[in-house]
Amino acid sequence: MEKLTLGEAELDSLIPRLKEGGYDAERVSRRRQWIEQKTGAALQHIGSPSFDTELMRGNVENAIGVAQIPLGVAGPIEIHGVCARGLFYVPMATSEGALIRSYERGMVALTRAGGVQTAVLEDENQTAPTFFFEQVQAAADFCQWAPLHLAEMQAEAAGTTRHGRLRGLKCYQAGRQVILNLGFSTGDAQGMNMIVKATDAVCRWIKKNYPVSSHFLFSGLCSEKRASGFLMTRGKGKRVTAGALLPHNVLKMYLHVTAGELFRVWQSTVLGHLQAGAIGYNAHAANGLAAIFIATGQDVANVVNSACAVTCFEPVEEGLYVSITLPALSVATVGGGTNLPTPHEALGILGCQGAGKAAKFAEIVAGALLGGEISMGAAIASGEFVEAHERYGRNRPK
Amino acid sequence: MEKLTLGEAELDSLIPRLKEGGYDAERVSRRRQWIEQKTGAALQHIGSPSFDTELMRGNVENAIGVAQIPLGVAGPIEIHGVCARGLFYVPMATSEGALIRSYERGMVALTRAGGVQTAVLEDENQTAPTFFFEQVQAAADFCQWAPLHLAEMQAEAAGTTRHGRLRGLKCYQAGRQVILNLGFSTGDAQGMNMIVKATDAVCRWIKKNYPVSSHFLFSGLCSEKRASGFLMTRGKGKRVTAGALLPHNVLKMYLHVTAGELFRVWQSTVLGHLQAGAIGYNAHAANGLAAIFIATGQDVANVVNSACAVTCFEPVEEGLYVSITLPALSVATVGGGTNLPTPHEALGILGCQGAGKAAKFAEIVAGALLGGEISMGAAIASGEFVEAHERYGRNRPK
Amino acid sequence: MEKLTLGEAELDSLIPRLKEGGYDAERVSRRRQWIEQKTGAALQHIGSPSFDTELMRGNVENAIGVAQIPLGVAGPIEIHGVCARGLFYVPMATSEGALIRSYERGMVALTRAGGVQTAVLEDENQTAPTFFFEQVQAAADFCQWAPLHLAEMQAEAAGTTRHGRLRGLKCYQAGRQVILNLGFSTGDAQGMNMIVKATDAVCRWIKKNYPVSSHFLFSGLCSEKRASGFLMTRGKGKRVTAGALLPHNVLKMYLHVTAGELFRVWQSTVLGHLQAGAIGYNAHAANGLAAIFIATGQDVANVVNSACAVTCFEPVEEGLYVSITLPALSVATVGGGTNLPTPHEALGILGCQGAGKAAKFAEIVAGALLGGEISMGAAIASGEFVEAHERYGRNRPK
Amino acid sequence: MEKLTLGEAELDSLIPRLKEGGYDAERVSRRRQWIEQKTGAALQHIGSPSFDTELMRGNVENAIGVAQIPLGVAGPIEIHGVCARGLFYVPMATSEGALIRSYERGMVALTRAGGVQTAVLEDENQTAPTFFFEQVQAAADFCQWAPLHLAEMQAEAAGTTRHGRLRGLKCYQAGRQVILNLGFSTGDAQGMNMIVKATDAVCRWIKKNYPVSSHFLFSGLCSEKRASGFLMTRGKGKRVTAGALLPHNVLKMYLHVTAGELFRVWQSTVLGHLQAGAIGYNAHAANGLAAIFIATGQDVANVVNSACAVTCFEPVEEGLYVSITLPALSVATVGGGTNLPTPHEALGILGCQGAGKAAKFAEIVAGALLGGEISMGAAIASGEFVEAHERYGRNRPK
Repeated sequence: MEKLTLGEAELDSLIPRLKEGGYDAERVSRRRQWIEQKTGAALQHIGSPSFDTELMRGNVENAIGVAQIPLGVAGPIEIHGVCARGLFYVPMATSEGALIRSYERGMVALTRAGGVQTAVLEDENQTAPTFFFEQVQAAADFCQWAPLHLAEMQAEAAGTTRHGRLRGLKCYQAGRQVILNLGFSTGDAQGMNMIVKATDAVCRWIKKNYPVSSHFLFSGLCSEKRASGFLMTRGKGKRVTAGALLPHNVLKMYLHVTAGELFRVWQSTVLGHLQAGAIGYNAHAANGLAAIFIATGQDVANVVNSACAVTCFEPVEEGLYVSITLPALSVATVGGGTNLPTPHEALGILGCQGAGKAAKFAEIVAGALLGGEISMGAAIASGEFVEAHERYGRNRPK
Repeated sequence: MEKLTLGEAELDSLIPRLKEGGYDAERVSRRRQWIEQKTGAALQHIGSPSFDTELMRGNVENAIGVAQIPLGVAGPIEIHGVCARGLFYVPMATSEGALIRSYERGMVALTRAGGVQTAVLEDENQTAPTFFFEQVQAAADFCQWAPLHLAEMQAEAAGTTRHGRLRGLKCYQAGRQVILNLGFSTGDAQGMNMIVKATDAVCRWIKKNYPVSSHFLFSGLCSEKRASGFLMTRGKGKRVTAGALLPHNVLKMYLHVTAGELFRVWQSTVLGHLQAGAIGYNAHAANGLAAIFIATGQDVANVVNSACAVTCFEPVEEGLYVSITLPALSVATVGGGTNLPTPHEALGILGCQGAGKAAKFAEIVAGALLGGEISMGAAIASGEFVEAHERYGRNRPK
Repeated sequence: MEKLTLGEAELDSLIPRLKEGGYDAERVSRRRQWIEQKTGAALQHIGSPSFDTELMRGNVENAIGVAQIPLGVAGPIEIHGVCARGLFYVPMATSEGALIRSYERGMVALTRAGGVQTAVLEDENQTAPTFFFEQVQAAADFCQWAPLHLAEMQAEAAGTTRHGRLRGLKCYQAGRQVILNLGFSTGDAQGMNMIVKATDAVCRWIKKNYPVSSHFLFSGLCSEKRASGFLMTRGKGKRVTAGALLPHNVLKMYLHVTAGELFRVWQSTVLGHLQAGAIGYNAHAANGLAAIFIATGQDVANVVNSACAVTCFEPVEEGLYVSITLPALSVATVGGGTNLPTPHEALGILGCQGAGKAAKFAEIVAGALLGGEISMGAAIASGEFVEAHERYGRNRPK
Repeated sequence: MEKLTLGEAELDSLIPRLKEGGYDAERVSRRRQWIEQKTGAALQHIGSPSFDTELMRGNVENAIGVAQIPLGVAGPIEIHGVCARGLFYVPMATSEGALIRSYERGMVALTRAGGVQTAVLEDENQTAPTFFFEQVQAAADFCQWAPLHLAEMQAEAAGTTRHGRLRGLKCYQAGRQVILNLGFSTGDAQGMNMIVKATDAVCRWIKKNYPVSSHFLFSGLCSEKRASGFLMTRGKGKRVTAGALLPHNVLKMYLHVTAGELFRVWQSTVLGHLQAGAIGYNAHAANGLAAIFIATGQDVANVVNSACAVTCFEPVEEGLYVSITLPALSVATVGGGTNLPTPHEALGILGCQGAGKAAKFAEIVAGALLGGEISMGAAIASGEFVEAHERYGRNRPK
């Protein structure tokens, strides 16, 4: 095999590796200037964070500054949850005109209707390492062995983290391969790094104690940051639901629709989703999730699994019962980006900073998203969708 | 129906509607203080944008400031595309430690391998209004009529936009309902608002010229911001692909794996995805998409449809041929958030500001994501995943 | 490589290859006796077909007789279709007690409601060979070239079959691979063998006229005999729909439910399907399809793609509008098993023997399935499901 | 509501309800003649079952005779399973020419390779009734209550059946609705009727003991006779796997391919399935399932869930390791149609008649399907597919 040697031009093209990662203001600036020089770009605003760049350590590499995303608030939304109780104003970072106005309208309607009931139904994150064997029977034997050794695996996992706890396991054999699905509680963190580290410890213990041919830390089954049928029932992070009864007069006054009209939108768009072969059904959960996730320092790529949500509208005598259920909501109030300056402040708006707040935060997210679902549905039913985007969005007449 | 009347407390809870939307610095500040007072939060950094808040008009409502997301660069990546040609440094905004380092490693490996070939294969955005009829036969008649009147519909659409063009239509009847799938070119914009407005004009024209019972502007079929089987072949925005041949020595030196090991990760995780009932297959496309979308002012919720991508690794004699194909990539270089200060600068790093650059941008995105795919695969194959996150991420030892 | 040589015991274990396939009564009998001797089984009834076994040639190999499946009829169902018009009795072969009674109840209800409207909306079968290239760009070039040569490909296809016609093509590139989706009309045949042969001719012509690295005749995209999102809009065979308005009194008298109750079953089971990550939505289309397919000599494995159907119930003032849409129904009135003795007779019950009858047959199938959908829904709504199975099924009290 | 009254013509159109269901030869004949007279069809062969029509009671209604489907055998296949051990000849009923020859080729290749390892990995059938509540919180309370009362529910279930046993439950709440997923063992029966009856008893007990607003016996979640992501991991009936190592010389001599060629078919068709948005991946499992199910008296509509299988080919030094895993195989050796004359005989060929044989049967099915997978893959790889269908199928030259 021929050894690669780099010429000067090639070495020159590499982004400079600065001392200790280069998070101090001077080195961030030097790197930014290097990029400006290489590409001819002018990076004034990216180069104007309002906070000490050292705080970015552990959140980014090759830092040159910050993206600044417009941040507004929608609300109030009244929530009667298990953990979240009261009136909330929801921070949303977005560049999509009309989005916040639409969510706000829905939230106010829910509040006028008496508020939203919410509950976290499950709370478990998953990993799914995979083990290889010579033959089908050897793999089947492992499936017998593994559940008998959960306690040892829990001990190994516990050695790597104080916050994550291995709760259970399940084997999925296919041919001579076995996916070992591990379920963890992760406290108030999104927890993926934490439980992958714990999973690594579990895998090393297994390798030492059982004749496995080889293994990988990931199999793809856990559906981190992707959409899948598995997520709908097995979940990822929090399974949370929010529901409310919208009386006829609230529907009319705030959403400009009847219960029948709004329901008909639900019914016909459910059929559209079925014909698309979609995972889940909802009006635009991804919009609200992305805006809240950016504002509050979540891992934004988790919008993909989180958006596998199911919205339901049911006609009842008094009006319309509406709900949204998110089987795989990945949210955190500690770790990741949650302690960066603007996310920390945004979580403060919700009273959700730090430990013991993730379930409360999940309930607020579910309630807020329900606001977006009814508002979008109503805009479609009433024919006001285009008009709203004309008024608030980028296409507005000048 | 009883009329709702609001008490003072209720009126008091509403976020103040300020004059002309309240985008000037003083009113943004007043609104922020109102939130601080209502919630007890301190919002110093959210309240410190480096740019004139009037620029947010059309991108956000109820503005109180900005979210500041750490922004770094990964690269260089050498791209031999149809529109993108040369060495690129890719701006990524994220709070996930190790993400940029991982993408960078993959990009450098691709560059050392001689670069990535890319191509935009399709470029069309979809809307899918739905029409209702009394009976199956009446709906079937409409399916005969509609294609004969494409020209008139194109004229109606053209009256609403200079940039979007209605290219074709297809009817999907189910029972007595017909979904009318309209395909548009949208120039360099993401274009959803533009083509929904055009679709509204088309629907109004149809209502005037054909006995439709009723209709809705949306059916859900078009899979905007959701994952579906439909997207895989019908697409949404750009279908783009990137591929490269990784020789054995590059695999060894930059990714610390053999072709066989890396391929085995592909094979076993494809099986994991199949068992999850996932839409598409890729290692972590959502990560790179979210980071690039936040940095460059894209509609971040479009990560959901964009991440329905298919990654392929093929063992060949010289090493491993690797590719990623994104059938539904929603990207823009004009409109939406692309002209906000930091996104505009970030697009400048790529030479992708403004009109005529969207295809180039799409090719760079595909190439960058391919870097992430091989780097993640290699981290799994070599067992270095946990170590990398320990070193760069939030869990690093103190 | 070591050559395999078989011992006597191994040679002895092979099923005897008899002269010219061995379809005459004597050889079928001899083969059956060989199996009886090898396995100790007694095969009297399998060995008692009522027809000349020579007729099985082309439909089966290693024939030892027939499976005899109970065959009943359900009906009448009144159909107002484009091709099917009048009262029909539907032959169904099944061993599931209560199935025919359930379909019959639904059909009679539809008939009392004034009958079912039906229409075939699309009629095209798909193949999807796949072509490999060295690089992304070479693959992209092929995607430009192929559509320009449709006429030549049509000529090649036409040289292999009188009944199939190549109507169009579409390229789906992923990385350096291109799936060429070919759409064919197949007359009254299911047509898969016919169009695969035509596709083979097209592929050979392409190989002669374009520098392709290699190709395969199948890619899996066409979703023959499997469930996929692709089928929902792209179809396979016939896209057919059936709809009817069930007035309140018919619902009450024949189905023992109100419109509201029946609708509520629809709504809640749609949610169940969404949570299952299912392809399509229907009550039990697979039941009716399997029974009709076995009775009429269809390729029974095509039940899998055909069952990707969408059932819709809509509350209206007069009662409930019900419909079923099958986007991928594979049915034939010529070829395959349709000319075998009992299938030919069963098609005769429907007036659907031979050429020119496939669209009529498809409409009847859709109408019949709709009967099953409303009957199953009503059994769930009224709580009569278990009782019906107790009365008619195997579990009945003795 | 207007009462419906039927005219004479309408009454005349109803299929005659004969005494005690009319299963004796005379009444079956009379009903058949009635159909012949109504439709003009001649039904000689349908009217020629070789067995006493009274035996059809409980398996069909409105019986007029039998469908006669050609039945052949494929094999031998050598199986080293947990329950199935030895050489087997597999009965398959089909009208698709070349199907049995193709399966046979694969089975013989597997046998020459030393046979197939098989194992049943899980064995549970599911029901999923659904319960409605006024509010989210009331539904959440039920989810707490239900698991605490599993023992009482098990007692209720046990009162309805000797063969089915309620093993566990899991609640899936969405909004104010709770799907109660019940897992049952069903012995050697497919068991759906049995466990639905048990589920009905459980639901009645719940209604008596908990303030439920209303409930339905079905929610659709359990995916009976449909394809879904849920099935891939949660299963339905038996999860069974079969695997074998095909050495290079067997590949060459029996399948006319190299390991590399056959693997390449796997890889490229996996990509095709991913692009189709398919559930699972396999070459043509539905074909073998349908043929074996018809031959052995299974519920043929269960082919839809059973075909959600995952086939894997892995290149290894010695050749190719091949496997198929069926996460949701619905098979029985008692109940349903298994005791009808020809199915009973067909099960006899496999030594799988009656109690205690379902697991053995499932292993044989998995092994047989694996034969079909490698044979189809090889036909694609070697380009022999069309030729094989020309020789054996209906399109053969005359």
